[in-house]
Amino acid sequence: MQETEEIKSISIIGVGNVGWHLSQALHEAGYEIKHIVSRSQEKLESLVQKLCTIHLTSIDQVQEEPDLYLICVQDVYIPEISASLSSSQSIVVHTSGGSDLKVFSAKQDKYGVFYPLQTFTKGNNMDWSEIPFLLEADNQSTLNKLKVVANRISGKYNFADSSARLKVHIAAVFACNFSNHMATIADSLLKKEGLDFKIVYPLLKETIKKLDRMSPDEAQTGPAIRNDAVTMERHMELLKEFPEWQEIYRLISKSIPFNPEP
Amino acid sequence: MQETEEIKSISIIGVGNVGWHLSQALHEAGYEIKHIVSRSQEKLESLVQKLCTIHLTSIDQVQEEPDLYLICVQDVYIPEISASLSSSQSIVVHTSGGSDLKVFSAKQDKYGVFYPLQTFTKGNNMDWSEIPFLLEADNQSTLNKLKVVANRISGKYNFADSSARLKVHIAAVFACNFSNHMATIADSLLKKEGLDFKIVYPLLKETIKKLDRMSPDEAQTGPAIRNDAVTMERHMELLKEFPEWQEIYRLISKSIPFNPEP
Repeated sequence: MQETEEIKSISIIGVGNVGWHLSQALHEAGYEIKHIVSRSQEKLESLVQKLCTIHLTSIDQVQEEPDLYLICVQDVYIPEISASLSSSQSIVVHTSGGSDLKVFSAKQDKYGVFYPLQTFTKGNNMDWSEIPFLLEADNQSTLNKLKVVANRISGKYNFADSSARLKVHIAAVFACNFSNHMATIADSLLKKEGLDFKIVYPLLKETIKKLDRMSPDEAQTGPAIRNDAVTMERHMELLKEFPEWQEIYRLISKSIPFNPEP
Repeated sequence: MQETEEIKSISIIGVGNVGWHLSQALHEAGYEIKHIVSRSQEKLESLVQKLCTIHLTSIDQVQEEPDLYLICVQDVYIPEISASLSSSQSIVVHTSGGSDLKVFSAKQDKYGVFYPLQTFTKGNNMDWSEIPFLLEADNQSTLNKLKVVANRISGKYNFADSSARLKVHIAAVFACNFSNHMATIADSLLKKEGLDFKIVYPLLKETIKKLDRMSPDEAQTGPAIRNDAVTMERHMELLKEFPEWQEIYRLISKSIPFNPEP
């Protein structure tokens, strides 16, 4: 691939939630998906057919290299994949919020990070226009090429070095993964009462909708911000059969600052 | 008020977030708002004018009683308000998720609970059709009357005794108040990097949107469910200057069960 040329062909390594969605978005944006590399044989036929691509079970089977390798495996496997691509002339990037750019430095010539800031679940349609990409690369030419790809998928991107990206990733874990776990605890508590999660879902939607117009600290409501000790004690008492949730309740309530007029 | 008659006039005691919104919804649904009772003089003129009502600073000033008193004060003040209404012939209800029906038993003849399961913030427009009411009363006649009111505001209601309502309330605290605090922590972490909360907002919206189609435990993603120890350690390391958030991170991650294929 010449320095001035655009990326045209892409091979996807790993088809977990991120690879599954990203490969389809790239195909729809007009990119040639050269290979899908995945040890797993399961449930890949329909994806392979849809993307008009080849399924390989190992990188060693690659004959014609793509312009770009997109590594979509779990963080812990990125160094191993990177090592096995050490003779590649392609650009090699990972899609992780938490892995450093340095993971590539000893092995690759042209490398970077292409991190979509979103929660991916198979079988769920994504609105890519809403998804910002955090981009990083070892040099400006590679960065420009990644920018073009991000632009064609979503139109939204930011440049972020590995340190800033890790902090965005932690923020995403709190805002997304941990919020979801709060919903899981709510769901479990309701189920024990024979009630459906649907009863609190409008509340949860409104909670998030508010954040379009005000900051989360302005939007905070509930017993903790009012320092309503009576209610919090009744809750703690009822949670005593779930000591883990009780401790989460205690810690988060303590972390919410008191405001006499929430 | 006769046993068979519908509620027509309502007095609102307390104009915090709940009273503020509920008084307007009741007015729009055609109820006469007889009084707004609030010690505070501030910011009430426009509300009083809009509702064509009278502002009293104490219940003692009531001359003509309404069909229904709606107590919208903090839980800790409900017994005191209830005591001061002890000679009332009106139905008396509170709007709290966490307070028992028994709070009224020694003081009132006709009493109940009218709890809107929603997060209220002044200045925010509510979609009342989305808000379920949890209703409870000391007798069937009162319950029927409250049902009519809930129906006219939102069309959604459930009957829940005080024990079930308290559990729904805890669930709501996790799903809403605690999710919002997760967003506050995310916002603070991003601000420290000079980044805007907007960057994770699409992620948060998608996190909640997913729950319309799958249960929260099916929707869980992130380092904890993958048991990605490397990433979690890097996050914990970065959070060490915020020991409270670090402890919340540790506890919630521990509470998310490992799933090898999230």
